[in-house]
Amino acid sequence: MSTFATPGFEDRVKESFAKQGAMSLIGARLVRVEAGEVEIHLPFKSEHTQQHGFLHAGILTTALDSACGYATYTLFPLGTGILTIEFKVNLLAPGDGELFRMVGKVRKAGRTISLAEGEAYALKRGKEKLVATMTATTMTMTDRIGVVG
Amino acid sequence: MSTFATPGFEDRVKESFAKQGAMSLIGARLVRVEAGEVEIHLPFKSEHTQQHGFLHAGILTTALDSACGYATYTLFPLGTGILTIEFKVNLLAPGDGELFRMVGKVRKAGRTISLAEGEAYALKRGKEKLVATMTATTMTMTDRIGVVG
Amino acid sequence: MSTFATPGFEDRVKESFAKQGAMSLIGARLVRVEAGEVEIHLPFKSEHTQQHGFLHAGILTTALDSACGYATYTLFPLGTGILTIEFKVNLLAPGDGELFRMVGKVRKAGRTISLAEGEAYALKRGKEKLVATMTATTMTMTDRIGVVG
Amino acid sequence: MSTFATPGFEDRVKESFAKQGAMSLIGARLVRVEAGEVEIHLPFKSEHTQQHGFLHAGILTTALDSACGYATYTLFPLGTGILTIEFKVNLLAPGDGELFRMVGKVRKAGRTISLAEGEAYALKRGKEKLVATMTATTMTMTDRIGVVG
Repeated sequence: MSTFATPGFEDRVKESFAKQGAMSLIGARLVRVEAGEVEIHLPFKSEHTQQHGFLHAGILTTALDSACGYATYTLFPLGTGILTIEFKVNLLAPGDGELFRMVGKVRKAGRTISLAEGEAYALKRGKEKLVATMTATTMTMTDRIGVVG
Repeated sequence: MSTFATPGFEDRVKESFAKQGAMSLIGARLVRVEAGEVEIHLPFKSEHTQQHGFLHAGILTTALDSACGYATYTLFPLGTGILTIEFKVNLLAPGDGELFRMVGKVRKAGRTISLAEGEAYALKRGKEKLVATMTATTMTMTDRIGVVG
Repeated sequence: MSTFATPGFEDRVKESFAKQGAMSLIGARLVRVEAGEVEIHLPFKSEHTQQHGFLHAGILTTALDSACGYATYTLFPLGTGILTIEFKVNLLAPGDGELFRMVGKVRKAGRTISLAEGEAYALKRGKEKLVATMTATTMTMTDRIGVVG
Repeated sequence: MSTFATPGFEDRVKESFAKQGAMSLIGARLVRVEAGEVEIHLPFKSEHTQQHGFLHAGILTTALDSACGYATYTLFPLGTGILTIEFKVNLLAPGDGELFRMVGKVRKAGRTISLAEGEAYALKRGKEKLVATMTATTMTMTDRIGVVG
């Protein structure tokens, strides 16, 4: 990343993360906030499942989308908000694990449009496996009063 | 759809949906199961939110992915399982509503690979608005013992 | 489409299409320009092929991307330019045909971000088959001097 | 990549590439074939343009799709064919350059479904810039007589 992070980005991300009811609902935890990179952990619960007993792709997406969004947000100017325009998820293996590690990284930070890439890893009996990837496009909102975070 | 639905598809979808812990977690309800088309409703709750108080794109995706997957599954032969390979979501408006209506429709039913399209509508004060679209690619699994649904 | 087309949109699209060297290279023809919908035809040539002798997915994408982009551009205000942010293509059947018909339609016309959907049909011995779909996100450029079209 | 490449993969890729009429049409050259990674160069020509005089996103996609497909094909067993199911392209900067360098890399090589990632770089006056990324899902075809490559 050639782009500089905005001072105070760690606190801004923590504050915004705490407002996401969805993160509490699924039990996701914000574990690492760096300039252009954010990591979120999701301990597996039986309420997260799809029909085969694995992590539902949507629950995985919920945590991974937040990881990508906050990775991008660390580079946003003060007073701006972030809006996800679209994301795409490739599911590479069943979501079979005790803990899922979501890593979001900025690929390109633009004035208006940014691209982040996410990776979801399943941890099972001490082994880690890549189970999904994401690409997420976000927009910087500078002109909407009251929309910060 | 030129492809015929598999007899008993409605019960098979209901049974599989009931096994998805994620649907209970978010409070999603299966409201319509037709050949190649499924509708899921998601009443908005404060636990569903992103940082601006709207529906988190991941929670929306969770319900929409199930709608697309089950729409496709209605056309699958008996004894097969469904696996989502990838999906892409375009977010068109904030998830601002009292209820979200997710509609999944099969676009192409193939022997191995199928494509479904999903639409998410927000209902607010009697008005409905398209807030997101999905394209989802699934694979028919015929050779994995015990993987049905 | 609830959005109104910009007067003179047909001429603006024709003018811009004529500037695309890529359309001449592949032999694509602009056949229909309506408010929010554009159709492009691509007669099959042996120079279009992938290794199995069918239409290369990239050549298909070239014509389909222009169809989606111009469909969106019909709704853009005067003096603005169009920029494609991303697109996704699902390939549903081999590109086996004498002529390919590309149809781009606006799904959501926004102030800054718009979404179009495209369909590619193969015509062979009087029969038509859907061979690919596209979703394309574009941005309206209002502030770049000299970038119109 | 933990997966081993199939002996003779370099010749198989060269042979298949030579059959792609589309590669000749746009003037793309195969410059590097390694296990799980392929590089294609595209010298810019005026016939490649979109309306602003830059590389058309579809022409870029044509070369990038082949790079991703062949990267994956290096790992395919003998006697199999490759089919692209879908791809997504994020356009990060205008295609403004004298030469475009397309790099395709396998991310996950599966028995049936594989994922590759592609990057397109524009070279201009000695400087290189990332202008687009791709994710491409392919399927290994083992049961179609005569479909190899």
